[in-house]
Amino acid sequence: MGMTMTQKILAHAAGLDFVEPGQLIEAKLDLVLGNDITTPVAIHEMERFKKQQVFDRDKIALVMDHFIPNKDIKSAEHCKQVREFSHKYDITNYFDVGQMGIEHALLPEKGLVVAGDVVIGADSHTCTYGALGAFSTGVGSTDMAAGMATGKAWFKVPSAIKVVLTGKPGKWVSGKDVILHLIGEIGVDGALYKSLEFTGDGVASLSMDDRLTIANMAIEAGGKNGIFPVDEKTVSYLKEHSSRPYQVFEADADASYEKTVTIDLSELKPTVSFPHLPENTKTIDEVGEIPIDQVVIGSCTNGRIQDLREAAEILKGRKVAKDLRCIVIPATQKIYLQALEEGLIRTFIESGAVVSTPTCGPCLGGYMGILAAHERCVSTTNRNFVGRMGDVTSEIYLASPAVAAASAVTGKISAPSELGL
Amino acid sequence: MGMTMTQKILAHAAGLDFVEPGQLIEAKLDLVLGNDITTPVAIHEMERFKKQQVFDRDKIALVMDHFIPNKDIKSAEHCKQVREFSHKYDITNYFDVGQMGIEHALLPEKGLVVAGDVVIGADSHTCTYGALGAFSTGVGSTDMAAGMATGKAWFKVPSAIKVVLTGKPGKWVSGKDVILHLIGEIGVDGALYKSLEFTGDGVASLSMDDRLTIANMAIEAGGKNGIFPVDEKTVSYLKEHSSRPYQVFEADADASYEKTVTIDLSELKPTVSFPHLPENTKTIDEVGEIPIDQVVIGSCTNGRIQDLREAAEILKGRKVAKDLRCIVIPATQKIYLQALEEGLIRTFIESGAVVSTPTCGPCLGGYMGILAAHERCVSTTNRNFVGRMGDVTSEIYLASPAVAAASAVTGKISAPSELGL
Repeated sequence: MGMTMTQKILAHAAGLDFVEPGQLIEAKLDLVLGNDITTPVAIHEMERFKKQQVFDRDKIALVMDHFIPNKDIKSAEHCKQVREFSHKYDITNYFDVGQMGIEHALLPEKGLVVAGDVVIGADSHTCTYGALGAFSTGVGSTDMAAGMATGKAWFKVPSAIKVVLTGKPGKWVSGKDVILHLIGEIGVDGALYKSLEFTGDGVASLSMDDRLTIANMAIEAGGKNGIFPVDEKTVSYLKEHSSRPYQVFEADADASYEKTVTIDLSELKPTVSFPHLPENTKTIDEVGEIPIDQVVIGSCTNGRIQDLREAAEILKGRKVAKDLRCIVIPATQKIYLQALEEGLIRTFIESGAVVSTPTCGPCLGGYMGILAAHERCVSTTNRNFVGRMGDVTSEIYLASPAVAAASAVTGKISAPSELGL
Repeated sequence: MGMTMTQKILAHAAGLDFVEPGQLIEAKLDLVLGNDITTPVAIHEMERFKKQQVFDRDKIALVMDHFIPNKDIKSAEHCKQVREFSHKYDITNYFDVGQMGIEHALLPEKGLVVAGDVVIGADSHTCTYGALGAFSTGVGSTDMAAGMATGKAWFKVPSAIKVVLTGKPGKWVSGKDVILHLIGEIGVDGALYKSLEFTGDGVASLSMDDRLTIANMAIEAGGKNGIFPVDEKTVSYLKEHSSRPYQVFEADADASYEKTVTIDLSELKPTVSFPHLPENTKTIDEVGEIPIDQVVIGSCTNGRIQDLREAAEILKGRKVAKDLRCIVIPATQKIYLQALEEGLIRTFIESGAVVSTPTCGPCLGGYMGILAAHERCVSTTNRNFVGRMGDVTSEIYLASPAVAAASAVTGKISAPSELGL
């Protein structure tokens, strides 16, 4: 029996020739990630270890992104604690206000993750880097602490679901629609502790930004990770962003999968996840009349340059609906500058949207767009759980940047086609 | 005995030929202002009135600016309440996310205040519009409610302090230095319930943005209002921003003043207010070595285009100091767009600063840059009271945008001259 791509990466990192699903292994880590919410807890755990140390000051990334610029005294204290920790251990990749960005957009951009890496991060959407052909997964703060101290982590090798992508998506269908469709198919626990292994000739038609969006939401199907094969686009991305060597792992032809799901990209329609689970998907033509109060375009899922371009293409020359709040959040300072250069920021502001500093902000109910009772929001973020963005009676509809932007113009959940696009 | 400029405006609005200090009058209001913190309280008061009505739907301005995009559920509920109130009474000048800006920057920009107006606002810095030759002052939410219902308000006619400005300020000395210097001279209660009447040949050398900054902080000396004579610059500003007719009132030659303070602008140096009162001023050469953690450039005091230009001139080609957070907040969407057009936003981001959506945010400890224990911030805002921006042990140093920007580069309180500028 052969191994999947994920299994091969884990075997290599564990110094083993072969691993099988369910096996417990100890793997070397190429990067340990934490943010302003989870790192303080990890620091607290580290302080309880006898020997205070970090395994490699270059292989730890601490990204202040959830509540900065600080939203309150507590978040200010948390950031201060991480800043002081970073000084103490001379952490190379500490990112504060100014160098900032949402962690899962920032790390690939900074070239800190490459194909073949094993990455853990104390944030559930750490699975994003599977788009680059890396194994990456979210862990708790205690595992993060152990990872920072030892450079190693224990894993149970996951079994796998093969997701075969075929065809090319049509206009206004993007990575977000692919992953929402998949979660709608298999459910929020459909890939519980399994790896989602994307493959098929359809992969080639997906941009790196699409793949990052798809891998990012693997966790929303319960997946341990999501992973894409390394192709020309990956290599080109890696070479552009990183000087680190990368390793390409390919699934064996006789690798074992628990299940295969096939998605014909050419048949996908813009897809929306209704409250209060990402699996509650409807295609845009099934949505009906849903008036909305707010639109959020951003997050680690959909705050990249392609996302902003799509939104701007729709908002250009149009106006955000009366009384609707449209909040655009570029995921990193670099993306912000790129959007500035391309005139997208101007388009957003002229349309009546506001443009925030990079932050996770409203996605997890932090700040920068919290919902009042009974308010509805179309959001390009990744979770629409009860009360996640505000009051427990508020509602979140997950969608692509294209659907979000079109909805901002009409004031109800809408396809770009409703605007003649 | 003649009347001061303020007294003349109040007499006119009360339909009287003459008023004297201490006299109680009822004056007609040209505008009633509220924001997202104070309007909900005023709405609550209005609901207690028998006859629910607004005196003039065109003469009420409701500006959501302190905590938007909403920072939490409470602020979301407050905005929702004001939004619904605005719908109910068809309020013309309701400003939400997208049309937004900090109230005291937004109203002059929108042409909602002109010379000769009487304006009350449920926000202490409503005195800003004195720069346009209007009488404007901060009131409580109950007075705001009565004002919205009746279009009138009671005032005790203030006595006056004459502030004679002479000469021209040197490079890197701006309106902020003028008002900080004045408050340092007379103290935070130096103008208690009095009008600060600015006059003298030095006025001509001050831009409208300078004058708005100066009038804005009249309240920080305890003033009922601050007011400037209407000159060519004022008329040009009014014509550019408003189609409303304006009225010019001039102080009588024999007007009575309790006191005269003379400031030679040419002798002013960049001035900093030390914690924890605006009156604790030092000139920049008296400051000494004060390392800082954060810089805020923005607010109703100093978030206008001139302020951003000055900050950008200093930050251009330079980098924000390591571990220092520099937060730039354009005061309105229009100022943001203008700054975009002029390349200032790019300069800020390239320097390592972050650019926020327009908001009062950190000024009053709302969000977007709250301070942890013992942290120090140089801020272009208007108050440095204990704990205003965060922890009670944090410290705020009030300064001009030029000093703030220079300090962001050096990491300590600095004059632009330290950078060879």
